[in-house]
Amino acid sequence: MFRTNTCGELRLSDAGKDVTLAGWVQRVRKMGGMTFVDLRDRYGITQIVFNNELDAKLNEAANHLGREFVIQAKGKVSERTSKNPNMPTGDIEILATELNVLNPSEVPPFTIEDDTDGGDDIRMRYRYLDLRRNPVRRNLELRHRMTMEVRRYLDSKGFLEIETPMLVGSTPEGARDFVVPSRMNQGQFYALPQSPQTLKQLLMVSGMDRYFQIVKCFRDEDLRADRQPEFTQIDCEMSFIEQNDVIELFEGMAKHLFKEIRGIELTEPFIRMPWADAMKYYGSDKPDLRFDMRFVELMDILKGHGFSVFDNAAYIGGICAKGAASYTRKQLDALTEYVKRPQIGAKGMVYARVEADGNVKSSVDKFYSQEVLQEMRKAMGAEPGDLILILSGDDVMKTRKQLCELRLEMGRQLGLRDKNKFACLWVVDFPMFEWSDEEQRLMAMHHPFTHPKDEDIALLDTDPAAVRADAYDMVINGVEVGGGSIRIHDSALQAKMFEILGFTPEKAQEQFGFLMNAFKFGAPPHGGLAYGLDRWVSLFAGLDSIRDCIAFPKNNSGRDVMLDAPAALDQKQLDELSLAVVIPEEKA
Amino acid sequence: MFRTNTCGELRLSDAGKDVTLAGWVQRVRKMGGMTFVDLRDRYGITQIVFNNELDAKLNEAANHLGREFVIQAKGKVSERTSKNPNMPTGDIEILATELNVLNPSEVPPFTIEDDTDGGDDIRMRYRYLDLRRNPVRRNLELRHRMTMEVRRYLDSKGFLEIETPMLVGSTPEGARDFVVPSRMNQGQFYALPQSPQTLKQLLMVSGMDRYFQIVKCFRDEDLRADRQPEFTQIDCEMSFIEQNDVIELFEGMAKHLFKEIRGIELTEPFIRMPWADAMKYYGSDKPDLRFDMRFVELMDILKGHGFSVFDNAAYIGGICAKGAASYTRKQLDALTEYVKRPQIGAKGMVYARVEADGNVKSSVDKFYSQEVLQEMRKAMGAEPGDLILILSGDDVMKTRKQLCELRLEMGRQLGLRDKNKFACLWVVDFPMFEWSDEEQRLMAMHHPFTHPKDEDIALLDTDPAAVRADAYDMVINGVEVGGGSIRIHDSALQAKMFEILGFTPEKAQEQFGFLMNAFKFGAPPHGGLAYGLDRWVSLFAGLDSIRDCIAFPKNNSGRDVMLDAPAALDQKQLDELSLAVVIPEEKA
Repeated sequence: MFRTNTCGELRLSDAGKDVTLAGWVQRVRKMGGMTFVDLRDRYGITQIVFNNELDAKLNEAANHLGREFVIQAKGKVSERTSKNPNMPTGDIEILATELNVLNPSEVPPFTIEDDTDGGDDIRMRYRYLDLRRNPVRRNLELRHRMTMEVRRYLDSKGFLEIETPMLVGSTPEGARDFVVPSRMNQGQFYALPQSPQTLKQLLMVSGMDRYFQIVKCFRDEDLRADRQPEFTQIDCEMSFIEQNDVIELFEGMAKHLFKEIRGIELTEPFIRMPWADAMKYYGSDKPDLRFDMRFVELMDILKGHGFSVFDNAAYIGGICAKGAASYTRKQLDALTEYVKRPQIGAKGMVYARVEADGNVKSSVDKFYSQEVLQEMRKAMGAEPGDLILILSGDDVMKTRKQLCELRLEMGRQLGLRDKNKFACLWVVDFPMFEWSDEEQRLMAMHHPFTHPKDEDIALLDTDPAAVRADAYDMVINGVEVGGGSIRIHDSALQAKMFEILGFTPEKAQEQFGFLMNAFKFGAPPHGGLAYGLDRWVSLFAGLDSIRDCIAFPKNNSGRDVMLDAPAALDQKQLDELSLAVVIPEEKA
Repeated sequence: MFRTNTCGELRLSDAGKDVTLAGWVQRVRKMGGMTFVDLRDRYGITQIVFNNELDAKLNEAANHLGREFVIQAKGKVSERTSKNPNMPTGDIEILATELNVLNPSEVPPFTIEDDTDGGDDIRMRYRYLDLRRNPVRRNLELRHRMTMEVRRYLDSKGFLEIETPMLVGSTPEGARDFVVPSRMNQGQFYALPQSPQTLKQLLMVSGMDRYFQIVKCFRDEDLRADRQPEFTQIDCEMSFIEQNDVIELFEGMAKHLFKEIRGIELTEPFIRMPWADAMKYYGSDKPDLRFDMRFVELMDILKGHGFSVFDNAAYIGGICAKGAASYTRKQLDALTEYVKRPQIGAKGMVYARVEADGNVKSSVDKFYSQEVLQEMRKAMGAEPGDLILILSGDDVMKTRKQLCELRLEMGRQLGLRDKNKFACLWVVDFPMFEWSDEEQRLMAMHHPFTHPKDEDIALLDTDPAAVRADAYDMVINGVEVGGGSIRIHDSALQAKMFEILGFTPEKAQEQFGFLMNAFKFGAPPHGGLAYGLDRWVSLFAGLDSIRDCIAFPKNNSGRDVMLDAPAALDQKQLDELSLAVVIPEEKA
């Protein structure tokens, strides 16, 4: 037996016991004739003491231990004279009588401490060492506990976890697929699923009634900071339900997780905010409601006073930053620069401070009388000490998105985005379609299987862009953690949807024939949603990126630098797959 | 709300309640002025009654319902006059007051009954309809319950479920990989994991201590009856353990599953049978111990009596089929044909009946005296009424495997392989290596990371073929449900192993450098195992193939005939991946 106890287990009540521990050497300290070794495993750290007077040879051996050596130590649990109240095992130490080096270690390339000296690149290359650090390990433990609780909850609600295949067909619609050449079917390819969407709908047709799966999904996209080519979804679908049933059940799941994982009891129902309101008041379909700072439209008040920027604008909107009137000119200039960055793209920013006496001092005072400014102040609900920030533009949606960025930045600067505070809501009534400038056609905002709102179905023929969907997103702290919809279960309506999306009947049949055919044999009304597990874990862990809640993530080029994958194949492998690599010549 | 209750829920105690049910029309029967509709969902069947006298129009509508229509029916729960004790809901029926057709259905291509009229092919093409059948649905429900219990058990033992990546590096050693071209890394490929073996070892190096994952794995093999290109593993690994720790913990898991899922309490420890004994007594490394019929070697008794087949044999072995002396000549000839089939390859079979008076009558009586035959009878432990079957050959292992097939066939014929009886064991002490005629070198019997038995390490230099491994398989009813080993955690020993397996140091570094490097930084002693989930579910479900415990399986050509995958790609997709399909010309 390698150990009788873990390194996080022993307490004062164990004093006197003979124990065997095993783990990694965190630290070796020599003090007089004693050597103190902090022994670490997943469960904690226990201090092992070697005493020159008792066993000089053993003490000498302990002195030669290096960081991250794997050792086994035997000895007696004993009360410490100087206790460490910061460690669960801090009341005791082990008086060593035996030491076995199970495996030595080279000096690790960075320190295995909560605050390490290792940069991102080296920690990714030696990810197995980075995972030894408490903060990273804790994220994986959290992930495990979250998936256990998700399963426990859904199982208790009658959901069956059903595995859908990883080798499916490619659907060029939507994001790019990762594909897998088939050796047995020459020249043909499987695709890895971007989500099990159509398969879970088939499971509803098959009468499975309540399905879920925690499942890997794949998207071959150019990677942004918070994207991974493979990611994990909590994928769910239910039959014989309406939108409200889905929302209530999964709001229940969210509350269950908040309670079990974070110890937070959310008793109030989540706000259900129509998409149009979310855009109007927060410029985002995933508003961060940890703080208010709602948009106020100022077109009526600020137009027509000779300030040409506003006079020509299609949208003028402001936010009120409570107590921020003390912002210096330098801070305000920095904010202006912030919104003018190409990623945000505002042309400029107007600000107005509400002074102690209630007077409004703005950056556009020469165009506006105090009377107009007071009118604006009232509209904004601003009080002495507050700062009003205003953006305008000739495209309503674009300007709102810019104002959203400004709002989030102000929230950050004012400390209103506390990672331990959670604001949850549902965004509902999404538009069915959005116009794609690139494709010059309407695209499905969610996906082509989304059910339009019953009261808007008539508009499909006359004004499809105005049709709203039975679609809903769950948003926490400005992060879309999940989303879904009621699906179309009627093959005629589904065919019409494909038509609006510009599919010829042949193309629709080719890509989604299996689903439309299935709908001919008694498809039940159904709907569901999918959560991004990585995002949700990150949110609960207070991480800025999903990367640190993934054991072995890929970098921004889609590479696993630890495994050094992807890599070139042997010619033999290519031949077996009937493939040739054809790298186009560089431009001359 | 689409329903107040499911179709499996209502009982006599619900009589008088107004309910709404929804589901599929299983059957419509017209009797006098009444129409009886069996309404089905995942949970059961409830009878809905329409009465011409109460509502002629409604009754007429019910008469027009077709099989598999999706309907919603409202009405009052009422006690049946003629109860059906075979149905949980058989005491009641619903007197319908309202009927809504939620979705009609075309006539399904086969009947949705426990015993369907649909052949394999059509059921696979319409898998979503096949899944509506009770026996198929029950397999998926069983699978869900098994994975829930596996997770519950492992979680209670401190295991963390950690997801490892699906896009990894290709390792040409072993079975063929499925590969995934990378668009962002031109000309390079990921591979889909054949198992997370090396990754879980890295997790041990990272101190995760106890890991598991229920995970999809991929192998691009020519498919046999019971193989799928993607399959699911229960993958586990532990640190600071010895073989016995792993065996005890996972024997506990098996017992937990038997109890929770099948209601069977296994109190005895599983037999641990050395591989050499399994081969000697059963001719298989996965013996079916539901019945005895052990091999008895008969070389000493039967050689040297002038029967040249035996006289020249390297192996002669028999089995005793209890009570089978009544086998007719025709049956015995059929058995002989059975073992002579090319898949088995025996040259012939000798039999001997023990008659009521104890006399032995054999097919080779002219070579053997009754005295010798009696000696054989005693060795075999055969009694009056028993049948002795004997095979011989010039290759010991091959002959044992033939005798194994004969034993299994006799077990089948004698009804000794009851699907509701379970015989579990561990096969231990596997050889480290096996000789490959194809490769003309030693190959790892498990994989190159398997730890040799400490007492055999010295043999690595002198007689590697004799080295036994710390490897173990769990076998149930002749099926290898899982297997694993203690791993090498020492980089020098690992390097030696690669050398024996014929890797140059460069090749070993190229393929497994990431693992060998990791071992330099304090790898703990570790080991684990992996279960084939599909096989285990099949075993518990009493299935002959793993296919029916998989929601959407592939056929023997690796095709999903429902999705019609794999398929050709658009040229645009190929171009983006820098790939060309090069199908070699057919031979002239």
